[in-house]
Amino acid sequence: MDPIRRAVVQLSRLPGIGEKTAQRLVWWLLRQPAELLHELAEAVVGLEGSVQECELCHTWCAGELCHTCQDPNRDARQVCVIERPQDLSAIERSGEYRGRYHVLHGAISPLDGVGPDELRIRTLLARCSDLDEVILATDPDVEGDATALYLARLLKPLGVRVSRLAHGIAVGTEIEYADRVSLVRALEHRRDM
Amino acid sequence: MDPIRRAVVQLSRLPGIGEKTAQRLVWWLLRQPAELLHELAEAVVGLEGSVQECELCHTWCAGELCHTCQDPNRDARQVCVIERPQDLSAIERSGEYRGRYHVLHGAISPLDGVGPDELRIRTLLARCSDLDEVILATDPDVEGDATALYLARLLKPLGVRVSRLAHGIAVGTEIEYADRVSLVRALEHRRDM
Repeated sequence: MDPIRRAVVQLSRLPGIGEKTAQRLVWWLLRQPAELLHELAEAVVGLEGSVQECELCHTWCAGELCHTCQDPNRDARQVCVIERPQDLSAIERSGEYRGRYHVLHGAISPLDGVGPDELRIRTLLARCSDLDEVILATDPDVEGDATALYLARLLKPLGVRVSRLAHGIAVGTEIEYADRVSLVRALEHRRDM
Repeated sequence: MDPIRRAVVQLSRLPGIGEKTAQRLVWWLLRQPAELLHELAEAVVGLEGSVQECELCHTWCAGELCHTCQDPNRDARQVCVIERPQDLSAIERSGEYRGRYHVLHGAISPLDGVGPDELRIRTLLARCSDLDEVILATDPDVEGDATALYLARLLKPLGVRVSRLAHGIAVGTEIEYADRVSLVRALEHRRDM
């Protein structure tokens, strides 16, 4: 296969990048200096091996412990349980959370063959003796709800406070356009004023 | 810089890919087998050196001559002049053109310091003795128009037919929403019925 075609095929394997975008990227790459191509290629290959799971919280990081687990200014007695490492970035962007994390790497989903043993649950239980609170931040869908329920049942007997992220109508959404499920949740979790 | 951050920085250098998309791509790449990372990286680096300008038409290709210039079924006496190699793909997709191409690699633009000498014009003139027709398919903007005008003045005295792509209202556009410039062109180039 000629190099242009090969690059188009490879780039269009990336999620959200179709044939046309890949072609546009390749035309652009062809006009760049050789160093840029090498820096890009090395950065892609560099993702292999040098990235591993944090020993404590299982997010992806370069060393043995991730930034949050190493940071002495983070509250070590509060842990936020998330499904994926990228959820960590989203919660960090909120700027509101000062505790640590625990990444499950998935959610319980019998249909996909994912049971509790496939998730990083044992290490979460091992951390519990040092914790005051576990915040369950799994997705608000069937799998995320099932996982949260499962974890709450396991964690509560250990004497740790277990909470879950509030769900409801997203800020800025007009009631008229809110989806049914969010509205149901918003009604269920209504707060006294 | 840690590998994840480095990959995000490198990917966000690509046109149309911002920080957030780059991050999403990196999360995806982290979950792929090592072969995929290597295949992608090799395809990117493979663009260097192995891609050169076709000796005849100056489009990008893997060998000395591009597919169109090698194809004996293409009309060698008709040449379509385009600004960029990617314009070739666009015209090929129309499925209407059976001649060959000539890539200028730009358009005359005094403001950007691009004069006729910076474009592949000398080799176009050298091809002219073998041609019946030159179709000017430069962009319908100030630079493209100037380039077409310049080329027409050079080529006509050589006894070759010089034509330009028709410009007007794009098919499917309602008159109400057509842009002013396209409407002006459509009126200028109106055809008798």
